[in-house]
Amino acid sequence: LIGGVNTLHDAGEHDVSFLANGRYRQMLGESRAAAVLVALDEKVPAGCVVVRVQDPHLAFARLQRLFHPEPSASGVRHASAVIDPSATLAADVDVAAQVVIGAGVVVGAGSRIGAGSVIGEGSRLGEGCLLHANCVVADHSILGCGVYLQAGVVIGSDGFGYAWDGEKHLKIPQAGRVILEDDVEIGANSCIDRGVIGDTVIERGVKLDNMVHIAHNVRVGAYSVLAGQVGISGSTTIGKGCQFGGQSGAAGHIHIADGCQFAGKSGVISDIEHRGVYAGMPAVPHRLWLRMSALMLKLPELWKFYKKR
Amino acid sequence: LIGGVNTLHDAGEHDVSFLANGRYRQMLGESRAAAVLVALDEKVPAGCVVVRVQDPHLAFARLQRLFHPEPSASGVRHASAVIDPSATLAADVDVAAQVVIGAGVVVGAGSRIGAGSVIGEGSRLGEGCLLHANCVVADHSILGCGVYLQAGVVIGSDGFGYAWDGEKHLKIPQAGRVILEDDVEIGANSCIDRGVIGDTVIERGVKLDNMVHIAHNVRVGAYSVLAGQVGISGSTTIGKGCQFGGQSGAAGHIHIADGCQFAGKSGVISDIEHRGVYAGMPAVPHRLWLRMSALMLKLPELWKFYKKR
Amino acid sequence: LIGGVNTLHDAGEHDVSFLANGRYRQMLGESRAAAVLVALDEKVPAGCVVVRVQDPHLAFARLQRLFHPEPSASGVRHASAVIDPSATLAADVDVAAQVVIGAGVVVGAGSRIGAGSVIGEGSRLGEGCLLHANCVVADHSILGCGVYLQAGVVIGSDGFGYAWDGEKHLKIPQAGRVILEDDVEIGANSCIDRGVIGDTVIERGVKLDNMVHIAHNVRVGAYSVLAGQVGISGSTTIGKGCQFGGQSGAAGHIHIADGCQFAGKSGVISDIEHRGVYAGMPAVPHRLWLRMSALMLKLPELWKFYKKR
Repeated sequence: LIGGVNTLHDAGEHDVSFLANGRYRQMLGESRAAAVLVALDEKVPAGCVVVRVQDPHLAFARLQRLFHPEPSASGVRHASAVIDPSATLAADVDVAAQVVIGAGVVVGAGSRIGAGSVIGEGSRLGEGCLLHANCVVADHSILGCGVYLQAGVVIGSDGFGYAWDGEKHLKIPQAGRVILEDDVEIGANSCIDRGVIGDTVIERGVKLDNMVHIAHNVRVGAYSVLAGQVGISGSTTIGKGCQFGGQSGAAGHIHIADGCQFAGKSGVISDIEHRGVYAGMPAVPHRLWLRMSALMLKLPELWKFYKKR
Repeated sequence: LIGGVNTLHDAGEHDVSFLANGRYRQMLGESRAAAVLVALDEKVPAGCVVVRVQDPHLAFARLQRLFHPEPSASGVRHASAVIDPSATLAADVDVAAQVVIGAGVVVGAGSRIGAGSVIGEGSRLGEGCLLHANCVVADHSILGCGVYLQAGVVIGSDGFGYAWDGEKHLKIPQAGRVILEDDVEIGANSCIDRGVIGDTVIERGVKLDNMVHIAHNVRVGAYSVLAGQVGISGSTTIGKGCQFGGQSGAAGHIHIADGCQFAGKSGVISDIEHRGVYAGMPAVPHRLWLRMSALMLKLPELWKFYKKR
Repeated sequence: LIGGVNTLHDAGEHDVSFLANGRYRQMLGESRAAAVLVALDEKVPAGCVVVRVQDPHLAFARLQRLFHPEPSASGVRHASAVIDPSATLAADVDVAAQVVIGAGVVVGAGSRIGAGSVIGEGSRLGEGCLLHANCVVADHSILGCGVYLQAGVVIGSDGFGYAWDGEKHLKIPQAGRVILEDDVEIGANSCIDRGVIGDTVIERGVKLDNMVHIAHNVRVGAYSVLAGQVGISGSTTIGKGCQFGGQSGAAGHIHIADGCQFAGKSGVISDIEHRGVYAGMPAVPHRLWLRMSALMLKLPELWKFYKKR
């Protein structure tokens, strides 16, 4: 009888485990797991019970989903929630305590709104959305189906737009919206600014980690993945299937091609026209960055030679 | 009849558009806008109707403000808001649902407090302030007139102060305040720590973008602009009219002169005495950084030469 | 009569001051303080009244604690708070307005829960905890005794885990918990993700500054200190007594030894096996980084020489 999934280190005799990262290979022989998901060609110590799969990480994900199914909405509305009479919520939408839902808001079937969250007037949420606690969805934002917001997310804050009038920074009204397409997930305390004119758009299936900053009028292409503390400046467009490592960022008004990957802490300051892996500030092809980083360590030697010549 | 302002790309025949960024110049001839705001010396394709102005960006800002006037406060107090009887709110102050306003708080005329926001005891807000949803203004903070806080902002959190007592980090009570002068705007989920002794001060007209971190006892000079995810360490003072690019930062206990600009991701680790443009970590004059960055790419060539010599 | 502690610059005749940072030494002679805490061997201008102590910063901390004692809990429960009947709160726990406390939550004696905070079902808080306003403690989190959360903190958000299924990023349920051991303090708007399997653990006495990102299954060793906007990627383990400067970060699945210090903005991308001071991206020993940074400035000179040779 299998009761759950666990790591190689912590699995007991009623757990399935998995080997998806080579760093943990040496634990394969020591694990007490009932069975281990491994790649088709993985070499396995004698006595280790394995299930060979094409993609152990994906197989783990599917098993984990079996053992931890998503709760479903049941139409509970907490008495302390403030729901404007003009809002339209599907019958089974859950609304937790201290929530505020503004005028004209529409929320689709199966959605769950976490405690303390605020949904501004005119916003529309599709089916099966999940807002964790204390999220803010500002007025007139559009969320597709299956959009997940972790706690503290802000959708639709004003973009950072001012014009110097000779005496002060004059605020430019940010009149656009934020659109999150289907199956987007946003990490805790991330912020996505509304457009100044037109919309900020996060396309289908994009995943953002915690404290990611998306400025006004950015477009993030479908299925792109942005890790923690990434920042994307205004009006930049990111292609489909891109990956940004933690604390990386992109300047404003640039375009990044489909399928680009950026290492953690890299800084993209001009258009990237070709799919590839990049690193550094300013970002350069990753191989070149590796070479440069290695040669930086040789600078003292180079300098010594130069001074002696 | 003109109904709004729009980008060159999206403007229709009833929109005014503008050309404020050279990157979009090629769209000038293709736009369907009724008229386009352009600089006095802009060359314009035949048949393109333009309005020549000194500063197209500023003119756009003013038009955008005409078409999107700020709503005004009307004295609405939501029944779910918890307002301490000793708080003093001007008659027209709006207080949205689930707000908490503590003892002795004073809020000036025309201010609007967004849903779920919390204002701690003894805080004072001037006239015409706007707090978006789920902001926190901790006890005894001072906000001038026309201060705007985007959603999720934290004002007056404890500064990061400890002393090692031989066994643990002993917390140092953070007894100062935060002062935001008139016309300050703070971006979503930014945090401004209170002083340990004395105050953290954001001077008049300063604009902070999202997720900016201002540590205890920092002073940010008037009209300075800090872009997304900038961090300023404790007791640092920033002059007037400075600009910090996204993800840049400054070490603690340093002074930065008036009018300094820092490129995105730069790191200031010592006093900056002269107005100028800086970049890199550690920050150096921008021209030097450009030269160094270009020569970094030549390191493999330099190294090859050295090894062959 | 001494009424408080103040800086050398601002102290009046009824204040004690302190000299804990050499940058402020020149103010020693000018201060109006009644007395100044100085190190045992500090040279002092004539006429300056001092109290010689082993560690002026620690002595200041202790004095500041005397003058600003922590308020204690008194069992106040605001009527607007929503507390599940199955939650168990010690008699003196304070619960502020608009709070939400879920089913089965346990809160120990002397704890104070700030306005608008949300504690998810099954979470357990020890004695003497303090949650400032609008914090989120997600379901099944464990907080030890004396844990302080500044405003807007998110504990127990989902980790960033997906597996590509050929068509989309399949969400991996994040079924672990967050454990904050005794005497941990977390800065405003910081986020600590729950483990995917097993727990994310912040050990005893750790202090995190504002907007720090801790990914799933990270372990931060006892008494470590992470400054503002630091990010630690998934499954990385940090030793005891480490220090991370502002905006620094660490990649995932690495191990960092006890007692390591990282300069601001540094990036740790592989295991660090030895105690020491590091800087740069990728992080190298600090002395080497200083040397490299100095020689970067010489690149134009090196290049000129090479081109002329």
